[in-house]
Amino acid sequence: MQLTQALHRAVAIQPDALATVCGGRRHTFAQFRDRVARLAAGLRAGGVGHEDRVGILAHNSDRYVEAYMAIPWAGAVFNPVNTRWSAAEIAYSLDDSDTRVLLVDDPFVAMVPDLQARSRSLSTLIHVGDQPTPAGMVSYEALIAGHYPVPDAGRMGRDLAGVMYTGGTTGFPKGVMQSHEAYVFNAIVLAGEFQVRSDERMLHAAPMFHVADFCGSNAVWNMGGTHITLPSFTPLGVLQALERERITFAAMVPTMVQMMVDHPDAAGFDLSALRTLAYGGSPISEAVLERAQRLLPQVRFVQVYGMTELAPTITVLPAQLHSPEGLARGKLRSGGLPVAGVQVRIVGTDGQELPRGEVGEIIVKGPGVMLGYWGKPQETAQAIARAPNVGWMHTGDGGCMDHEGFVYVVDRVKDMIISGGENVYSTEVEQVVAQHPAVAACAVIGVPDEQWGERVHAVVVLKAGQQATAHEIREHCKPLIGGYKCPRSVEFVAALPTTGAGKVLKRVLREPHWKGRERQVA
Amino acid sequence: MQLTQALHRAVAIQPDALATVCGGRRHTFAQFRDRVARLAAGLRAGGVGHEDRVGILAHNSDRYVEAYMAIPWAGAVFNPVNTRWSAAEIAYSLDDSDTRVLLVDDPFVAMVPDLQARSRSLSTLIHVGDQPTPAGMVSYEALIAGHYPVPDAGRMGRDLAGVMYTGGTTGFPKGVMQSHEAYVFNAIVLAGEFQVRSDERMLHAAPMFHVADFCGSNAVWNMGGTHITLPSFTPLGVLQALERERITFAAMVPTMVQMMVDHPDAAGFDLSALRTLAYGGSPISEAVLERAQRLLPQVRFVQVYGMTELAPTITVLPAQLHSPEGLARGKLRSGGLPVAGVQVRIVGTDGQELPRGEVGEIIVKGPGVMLGYWGKPQETAQAIARAPNVGWMHTGDGGCMDHEGFVYVVDRVKDMIISGGENVYSTEVEQVVAQHPAVAACAVIGVPDEQWGERVHAVVVLKAGQQATAHEIREHCKPLIGGYKCPRSVEFVAALPTTGAGKVLKRVLREPHWKGRERQVA
Repeated sequence: MQLTQALHRAVAIQPDALATVCGGRRHTFAQFRDRVARLAAGLRAGGVGHEDRVGILAHNSDRYVEAYMAIPWAGAVFNPVNTRWSAAEIAYSLDDSDTRVLLVDDPFVAMVPDLQARSRSLSTLIHVGDQPTPAGMVSYEALIAGHYPVPDAGRMGRDLAGVMYTGGTTGFPKGVMQSHEAYVFNAIVLAGEFQVRSDERMLHAAPMFHVADFCGSNAVWNMGGTHITLPSFTPLGVLQALERERITFAAMVPTMVQMMVDHPDAAGFDLSALRTLAYGGSPISEAVLERAQRLLPQVRFVQVYGMTELAPTITVLPAQLHSPEGLARGKLRSGGLPVAGVQVRIVGTDGQELPRGEVGEIIVKGPGVMLGYWGKPQETAQAIARAPNVGWMHTGDGGCMDHEGFVYVVDRVKDMIISGGENVYSTEVEQVVAQHPAVAACAVIGVPDEQWGERVHAVVVLKAGQQATAHEIREHCKPLIGGYKCPRSVEFVAALPTTGAGKVLKRVLREPHWKGRERQVA
Repeated sequence: MQLTQALHRAVAIQPDALATVCGGRRHTFAQFRDRVARLAAGLRAGGVGHEDRVGILAHNSDRYVEAYMAIPWAGAVFNPVNTRWSAAEIAYSLDDSDTRVLLVDDPFVAMVPDLQARSRSLSTLIHVGDQPTPAGMVSYEALIAGHYPVPDAGRMGRDLAGVMYTGGTTGFPKGVMQSHEAYVFNAIVLAGEFQVRSDERMLHAAPMFHVADFCGSNAVWNMGGTHITLPSFTPLGVLQALERERITFAAMVPTMVQMMVDHPDAAGFDLSALRTLAYGGSPISEAVLERAQRLLPQVRFVQVYGMTELAPTITVLPAQLHSPEGLARGKLRSGGLPVAGVQVRIVGTDGQELPRGEVGEIIVKGPGVMLGYWGKPQETAQAIARAPNVGWMHTGDGGCMDHEGFVYVVDRVKDMIISGGENVYSTEVEQVVAQHPAVAACAVIGVPDEQWGERVHAVVVLKAGQQATAHEIREHCKPLIGGYKCPRSVEFVAALPTTGAGKVLKRVLREPHWKGRERQVA
């Protein structure tokens, strides 16, 4: 299995069909392949060798689609950089994987001096923006224009294709090494699950550095569809693109779906071309789904639950269950069923499979399991070589499975609280605390407690000008959840510490409470 | 990867949707699973153990669909028997794979005494027909009614799933051992290539013992569609079923497509539900495709080139090229492009890859490559462990690849003739000889020749009441093909020896000419 095979196929089948649309730029598959083969030549001429990492720090564009093909074509390995990270985080990830060549888009040019000051690895900068190429950088278009096409390096199977950095909520980011096979297997499976057609027109509005967009993209590659890019997500931008480009397929997170659906002008657009809307990251709320289905009555909604370490698909909740029946059966709250070729188990702390319905860690086996974390043999062993489930990816997600095999994610295992022997899922408590009218945001953590082992502790941000006491928060929770789940202590803060991607850093919140102690987690 | 996973998924997603339709019988997925789990219990109670082979000698029915799931569910291995074989051939294949339990349909009950007399292995007969169960057999429905459901044995991955017998044109049939992974990989790939939807309604009109129907069937299983069976192919039966059952997907050989399209009443049926018509076995003629597209203007035609040893897909010619453009580019004569995850090479007799355009043996690598031939380590080594292409399936097909990667099959390697150092493809010569107005059928073989090494020799059956001389046949050919391809000798016979499936046995034709000599083939 080979990432570039889909490009070879698309050119052979329909050389003159549109491969990419980016603003006013349009390239056919034949043009696209020519550009990729020249860019690969340019990368090699610039010193990119076998299995060298090439970073991409860019907003979405046709050039991002090209880079994802040109880097493996050149025999190298892509490292798509999280655009929301700070210079310190980016420099860490570049150095960690010894990434020397970086493609840089216009909005990130200003960050370059800081990156250069912090990174030991970084040596070559390729400018992929539309502005004039800054001094000290190589022009992407000049690289393409200045080189003859080279043949595909032909990497495939278990060869390393990409290093995608993940995490930050639990420490330093880790570089997830994925093979051609893992990505292509996912592309094949998702082409079926999304019912991708050869005339598909995919909108890239969610960030292209993320594995979710990449794998939806490969599913479309597999069938020979067209890629239409927006630099980044805005609700209005998406609505306009759906109409203007007659988009048939898009992938988003539920928040994006909600923002698009609730845009005041949404009903004024012709969205009739859209056939499939894939979403992931979390289940969709019943209310948002209902509004989305009213706006897009012809659309198949499909949920994917996955993670970078699985390239990424674990389960899919199919379109048929985005329905009153799916709601009545409780399936809308699930992540769906394992896709073909993927196995899921729920295991206890001893690694033994738990009875259906009990919460434990979700572990996964299949062709998508990562090769490992770059340069981190211990973390790799902990994730995929832990007895008795060697070869299974330990997701770190806490969840359960019903008797029909549907998988429900309840919390990160590390964020689960064991209080008086009872499991408490922080996310459940957070949802209840957040319903208090004065609460703007909250995070629930376990802190050490003499009597209970761990105590449920809420960290709360109040809305501007609003007041609430710890007692009031507790009293608000009591009628809504079991007493052992109610926060026993409440702390008020001005803001929660978050990652660049907006995830709350519970590790940072827990630190002062646990100083000098070891917290036992699954 | 596990063949039964698709059944578990379908039941979980839509327990009340229709799984099978067979005449008046209809079963939902929940009912289907219940029957499968009971049948598996019945098989085990009847002595079927881990990896035991279970034969199926039956026309198409919902019970055939059930057996394909129940046998792996029971932990056993299916052996679907070619219904066109003689008792001697069937007994050979049962004994070769030590198949002790056989499911027998009504039309084959009369053959049972002969089978029992010839087979050493056969001990248990399960009657799957609609007639009263004959003495000495167990009733299929009684087995289901008489047992509680058992859990799925959970075989998967590289576990043996099926033994499918193939060949006969080149000697004794060989049992092709295929894994769960090989079949499921094909199902996933084909679900994408056929653009199978969750509301698919597949017609099983081609024989279900064949890998082609089985793998189309698994693609439909993957998406949760409905299986509608006809006992066997008749043009009228297919036309009626397409209309009555609102069939959306069917798989056939080109001859079946031609017979259906040319049926005098074809235009009178409502065939508007059909979306996809997959065909394989050979390319489709331009004339038949044109008539088929006139009758079925909304249908996507997709060609699959494959073989049992590859479970089966090698290449697919996609719908877009069943078009004036595909014709103009010469692609309609090809088998299409390798599917995702499959590699194809054209190699010479030394195993080295040949330049594009040159004819050699087609070899294939991918997840579909067989585990081996049952009990035939030498033939297995010759097929998949031949240096320098170890792990590649040597198809025995002669063919070439154009510069875009399209694969063209020209002849079986064993049937190619090397005359005076020139390659002659028997099929090409046959097509020309067959155009002579007096010729009913012909086969072209290589026979030993002092001067040329091999000589092109035609074996001809004349039409009733028609006359032709060897000289006339040669003169007919001369203006149409190069002199070295024209038959140097012609032999007239009353009939050609064929296999049960109607393939000409060139081995038998060659035998008298080559007695006592060794013929060199690639």
